[in-house]
Amino acid sequence: MVEFTVFKGSKEGKIIESKTTRELGPDEVLIKVTHSGLCGTDEHYKHQDMVLGHEGAGLIEETGSSVKNFRKGDSVGWGYQHDACGHCKQCLTGHETLCAERKLYGYANHDQGSFAHYGVWKADFVFKIPDSIPREYASPLMCGGATVWNVLSSFTAKPTDRVGIIGVGGLGHLAIQFAAKMGCQVVVFSGTDSKKDEAMKLGASEFITTKGATELHVSGPIDHLLITTSFQPDWKLFLPIMAPSGTLYPLTVSNDDLKIPYMPIIAGELKIQGSLVAARHVQRDMLAFAAHHQIRPVIQKFPMTVKGITESMKILDEGKMRYRGVLVVE
Amino acid sequence: MVEFTVFKGSKEGKIIESKTTRELGPDEVLIKVTHSGLCGTDEHYKHQDMVLGHEGAGLIEETGSSVKNFRKGDSVGWGYQHDACGHCKQCLTGHETLCAERKLYGYANHDQGSFAHYGVWKADFVFKIPDSIPREYASPLMCGGATVWNVLSSFTAKPTDRVGIIGVGGLGHLAIQFAAKMGCQVVVFSGTDSKKDEAMKLGASEFITTKGATELHVSGPIDHLLITTSFQPDWKLFLPIMAPSGTLYPLTVSNDDLKIPYMPIIAGELKIQGSLVAARHVQRDMLAFAAHHQIRPVIQKFPMTVKGITESMKILDEGKMRYRGVLVVE
Repeated sequence: MVEFTVFKGSKEGKIIESKTTRELGPDEVLIKVTHSGLCGTDEHYKHQDMVLGHEGAGLIEETGSSVKNFRKGDSVGWGYQHDACGHCKQCLTGHETLCAERKLYGYANHDQGSFAHYGVWKADFVFKIPDSIPREYASPLMCGGATVWNVLSSFTAKPTDRVGIIGVGGLGHLAIQFAAKMGCQVVVFSGTDSKKDEAMKLGASEFITTKGATELHVSGPIDHLLITTSFQPDWKLFLPIMAPSGTLYPLTVSNDDLKIPYMPIIAGELKIQGSLVAARHVQRDMLAFAAHHQIRPVIQKFPMTVKGITESMKILDEGKMRYRGVLVVE
Repeated sequence: MVEFTVFKGSKEGKIIESKTTRELGPDEVLIKVTHSGLCGTDEHYKHQDMVLGHEGAGLIEETGSSVKNFRKGDSVGWGYQHDACGHCKQCLTGHETLCAERKLYGYANHDQGSFAHYGVWKADFVFKIPDSIPREYASPLMCGGATVWNVLSSFTAKPTDRVGIIGVGGLGHLAIQFAAKMGCQVVVFSGTDSKKDEAMKLGASEFITTKGATELHVSGPIDHLLITTSFQPDWKLFLPIMAPSGTLYPLTVSNDDLKIPYMPIIAGELKIQGSLVAARHVQRDMLAFAAHHQIRPVIQKFPMTVKGITESMKILDEGKMRYRGVLVVE
């Protein structure tokens, strides 16, 4: 039995420090958390009595009796991917993120998360972090990186495609890097030009400001459009710049309906593609690609304490994070 | 110069008999129309001063000087597919229906259509009708058949997939046949059970009534859902029965926005796929498949006259067509 500190949401939205106890199963590993990324989704859950955080990075502290692929001291990360059934069609075809029995957020009873000092996770859903990626940079890749990489790699963006990215934030600033390194032309859309220099440095080939625009002028049509903002864009602005058979990926969590002009979708054979996170084989490819191309999130660090978490969530909520918050266990 | 009778829409929505003159170009054929299908889209255009009809079938009467692949007396059909540029990426990759220079409806100046006694069309956009398909059955395949076949064949429905079809009308009753002959399990959704017997006879494996339903009970999830009704369905009913990574195809022309719950799309990695009509190579496959499997629309015939067209459009408008109207030049 292990006991460790976790940080939870609460009805009033305050961060609460608490304790969890767990037994280490034969197929599980005990991880000493060193870092956790802070994701917009944590904001959504902060009013619930559950442990937050799903961009974990840390060191293997102990392995269950049947675990063969990790040993004490390994640098590892974990995200959304855990606890799928392993037997259904989705699991057998490398889409275990769509398994009907998957646990999408948190672990049984939500008594664990990466806002914590330790965690016990199934070894099969934990990833080795390549040596060349320091854990503080690896943690935001576990969900933010995986989310944008899944779009680009699982729905077949080609190196000759033009990729549009709406929003330069936690997801957007990683999408720019991944798409650019895949060889794509990258067109970034942002309200103002305050993030232009950084976006171009990260690999954008065009930067378009949208505030007050009634028409968008791009150098050519967009094959894949990633919507990484926390709200739906003005679709009427974006549909005319889509290439025939182009794809739109709304990526952020929202309780609104999707509301979009109908005929341009039909006439252009456009596609709206839902995408959540990466399956495990996709996550592994993402880490290898990030390591090879030295893709790094731009991060702001905070201590893994009630005060640190509260401060980081405030900065994220105000839209001031540049570009991903990382909590550090000190 | 040829002169021939055509039937046009008008501001008041009345059908007008008129004359068109055209010269036969070297790459064109003159077709003596024998049949034309009546499509819901004709309803949309009846208030415009343009010749209606885009489900043509007839006999080659004369060929232009450079036309090698047709001769007088050939049984041919034509639909939407005509006049793409031939040089752009879309044209070069077999997606000429998405060519930016395509003429989607009618021909230059809308002075031709299949509601006519003759037509002059580019030979490259005319199709040989297989001998085993009588032209009265072939004409509704040119757009209605092509529209549903394009979904099933271009977006890779597999024989092991379960195909859902909302609506048993001009498109739906053909989709049932195509999907069933492709080996798919076919689940039909209709308001009441008035069309159940016919749908099952055409190849449906399940028939579900939706009027007043708050939940749909299907024997398994749906991989491809074709929406062939003239209005958007109650998406909340249908999203829960979609398979993970399933695809929704809104097929009918509408000026409304598409409005659909957002999170089920993301979480299920569902896809909304626009689809218009079939490119030429797809159209040819469709005709060969229909010939091989003796797929036949169920038709109601009307004379190709102002009176016949007016009557057929009234029946279509009232939702009483069983299931495709065909105008016959007598």
